[in-house]
Amino acid sequence: MPRLSLFFLSLLLVSQAEAQQPDSVIRSIFSEALTDTTAYHHLRWITKNTKGRLPGSGEALLAVEYTRQALIDAGADTVWLQEVSVPHWKRGEEKAVIISDASGRSELTIAALGLSVGTAEEGLTAGVVEVHSFDELAKMGREMIGGKIVFFNRPVDDKLINTFAGYGGAVNQRVQGPSEASRYGAAAVIVRSATHALNDFPHTGVTRYAADIDPIPAAAVSTIDAGLLSEALKKDPDLRIHLLLTCKNLPDTVSYNVIGEIRGSSRPGEYITVGGHLDAWDNSEGAHDDAGGCVQSIEVIRLFKKLGVRPQRSVRAVMFMNEEISGTGGRAYAAQAMERGEVHYAAIESDRGVMAPRGFTFEASGERLLKLKSLAEWFGPYNIRDFDQGGGGSDIAPLKQLGTLLIGYIPEIQRYFWYHHSANDTFEQVNIRELQGGSAAMAALIYLLDIYGY
Amino acid sequence: MPRLSLFFLSLLLVSQAEAQQPDSVIRSIFSEALTDTTAYHHLRWITKNTKGRLPGSGEALLAVEYTRQALIDAGADTVWLQEVSVPHWKRGEEKAVIISDASGRSELTIAALGLSVGTAEEGLTAGVVEVHSFDELAKMGREMIGGKIVFFNRPVDDKLINTFAGYGGAVNQRVQGPSEASRYGAAAVIVRSATHALNDFPHTGVTRYAADIDPIPAAAVSTIDAGLLSEALKKDPDLRIHLLLTCKNLPDTVSYNVIGEIRGSSRPGEYITVGGHLDAWDNSEGAHDDAGGCVQSIEVIRLFKKLGVRPQRSVRAVMFMNEEISGTGGRAYAAQAMERGEVHYAAIESDRGVMAPRGFTFEASGERLLKLKSLAEWFGPYNIRDFDQGGGGSDIAPLKQLGTLLIGYIPEIQRYFWYHHSANDTFEQVNIRELQGGSAAMAALIYLLDIYGY
Repeated sequence: MPRLSLFFLSLLLVSQAEAQQPDSVIRSIFSEALTDTTAYHHLRWITKNTKGRLPGSGEALLAVEYTRQALIDAGADTVWLQEVSVPHWKRGEEKAVIISDASGRSELTIAALGLSVGTAEEGLTAGVVEVHSFDELAKMGREMIGGKIVFFNRPVDDKLINTFAGYGGAVNQRVQGPSEASRYGAAAVIVRSATHALNDFPHTGVTRYAADIDPIPAAAVSTIDAGLLSEALKKDPDLRIHLLLTCKNLPDTVSYNVIGEIRGSSRPGEYITVGGHLDAWDNSEGAHDDAGGCVQSIEVIRLFKKLGVRPQRSVRAVMFMNEEISGTGGRAYAAQAMERGEVHYAAIESDRGVMAPRGFTFEASGERLLKLKSLAEWFGPYNIRDFDQGGGGSDIAPLKQLGTLLIGYIPEIQRYFWYHHSANDTFEQVNIRELQGGSAAMAALIYLLDIYGY
Repeated sequence: MPRLSLFFLSLLLVSQAEAQQPDSVIRSIFSEALTDTTAYHHLRWITKNTKGRLPGSGEALLAVEYTRQALIDAGADTVWLQEVSVPHWKRGEEKAVIISDASGRSELTIAALGLSVGTAEEGLTAGVVEVHSFDELAKMGREMIGGKIVFFNRPVDDKLINTFAGYGGAVNQRVQGPSEASRYGAAAVIVRSATHALNDFPHTGVTRYAADIDPIPAAAVSTIDAGLLSEALKKDPDLRIHLLLTCKNLPDTVSYNVIGEIRGSSRPGEYITVGGHLDAWDNSEGAHDDAGGCVQSIEVIRLFKKLGVRPQRSVRAVMFMNEEISGTGGRAYAAQAMERGEVHYAAIESDRGVMAPRGFTFEASGERLLKLKSLAEWFGPYNIRDFDQGGGGSDIAPLKQLGTLLIGYIPEIQRYFWYHHSANDTFEQVNIRELQGGSAAMAALIYLLDIYGY
């Protein structure tokens, strides 16, 4: 059957020619992503209908169901939920009022920290001590701190170009501050919001009580009101604050990772994961953090399916649950992969906001890093140039034990902390084109990684 | 006096050592820019107090006076105004209503194009023909176009990564469309806003009537209402639009470029210019376009002065007048430079919005371009990496005849056309940190160009 053989030969040649021209595939990925509004509509639905989606909430379950359906609609070959044990913390009433003989009463804009215990029902009233570091706290000691509200007021360092480094330099006040203050007998903690923004949004986030301390109530205050409080303390060091927090920790409950998979053509047992986290702070629509990363990951599936690009390896989009509080979603995903003996070649996380794409960071070094950096050449036409060594993300980090190549998606980050963990993180703060570009960038990288196997 | 000589020698060595360490100077430029709010406050004042600052307006004169004072406050050695002849176009009432036997009346969100003539006092009512190109217009000819309102509805191509190229592919409908339609006897023109955004802001901009046609009234319609009108035309091709525009062209008047100069230490007769344009569309606060570029340029002066960085060449910040309508400010600046025999070594324009800094484009080639691109290494720590061949900007373009090196400041541009020429271009859409980064980038580049003289 020479004619039939010729036919198959020509098919093979076309297929090889296509494999040798990734630039046309990448072009088609960007063109489709930049002209389709599916991901943007998903983002709108999640942010507007599931606000309050803390890990243990009903809103989170609604987001689970919505994205499960979205993955089916995107054309994933298989879609399933993975059970995850999650904490169940509930915000309640929250109020802080300065009481000063000199300047009267003024209310502060605050938000309880995640996992914080509440105050007594009637609240508490105490003097305030402003500190800027744990060293300063230790020097003051129990004598000056005991019974007081500790006000951590070290700002983010605006001079650091990497805004995540700036955030990282301030956020220990939120995460460990309440525990450290409790060691010296503090009554409660108020912490300056860990943000570059000077505005009136409190930025919440988790606090972690050490095992050996008495948990004390803790809240973030907006940066404007942190300045106001600091000024008030200068005028009247004896001022007191009345603090009321009715937040509480309920028993752990069950939620889910949502997973959608395209089965690989020739290496279906090897996986490339792309994901974001579905949970978000309850005071926020969680558009940039991180509904955006989720809908971009769903869009990667849609792009492959729509364009008929079939990867050799299986590609999974994962909506991780409980990134914000205790990371059980990421750990459950890696644990199950290990248990099943899955080979996880690479994983990409989108959890730095959905601003315009700039590049990727790779947890790699030496020769491998050089090869990965060489992939940047494919992205030149899309102004995506930053291929650097750096971290992947907290949801995919547990895959490290499987030898997985961990990759962080890096958008423009200068304004991210204006939104992060606050009511300012809304759908309206996301630009559709910047969202779309991120989906395309991740799809293109997965496509290239699958070809080259670096 | 061996001791004194030694003293002077050591001074010289220190000075040379400093000259060899541009990285510390650049670091100080970024640190100062990122922690100072002067430019941001200037931006707020200009956007909130001089809205409506078309070239011939009183608001423009208020912006002239404000920035003159701001340049003095920034520490410029000399500040002056340069007279510029400008057009004086005034928007008036503007209204467009669809009248359809099938679907009744519905109002469209429009904005008259700059320089457009008005309709008769009572407005005009005519049928509508939708076209997407001048070819299509020519094919239809006078028979189908005569007496009609031509509706240009070709959208921006979302697939183009360079959003300015996308804009460039659509904007001839606004600039030449009314003239082209007039050639076939059209009564008026309605043009789809040249923007990637799907929203209800009309984006205005100048139209240029050819010398050999009868000017006809012209307005931009929001992209949402362009879609609505197109749908309405499908349902009822016989619908009419009632259009009322009372805009008018008054006689030319006088306005000013605002110039602030730092006198160069050793080559004061050679100039480096940095600028933006002070005029803006009257329906807009003109924050991104281009009060931002102006305040960044003033900030360059402030940074040099505050940090005691004294350039060899004279550095000028220029607020150009009348970029939006007919570019007389840029031409007047170059003409005077030529007349006075000034040597203009380089000029940078910031007129692509004030999003996060990405790099610069240089109107250079060959060996010179390679040298200029090599300056990117200094900007790596600031994530400013895009040093490419490309255009400078329309205000500095006339300096080309003096052999000036023309440079465009390039911020992130994916979302720029969401704001451009519309009421959506407000102070609130500018992030302080992205603004500050741009000032620092331009100051650092001027500092390096002055040292290396490429």
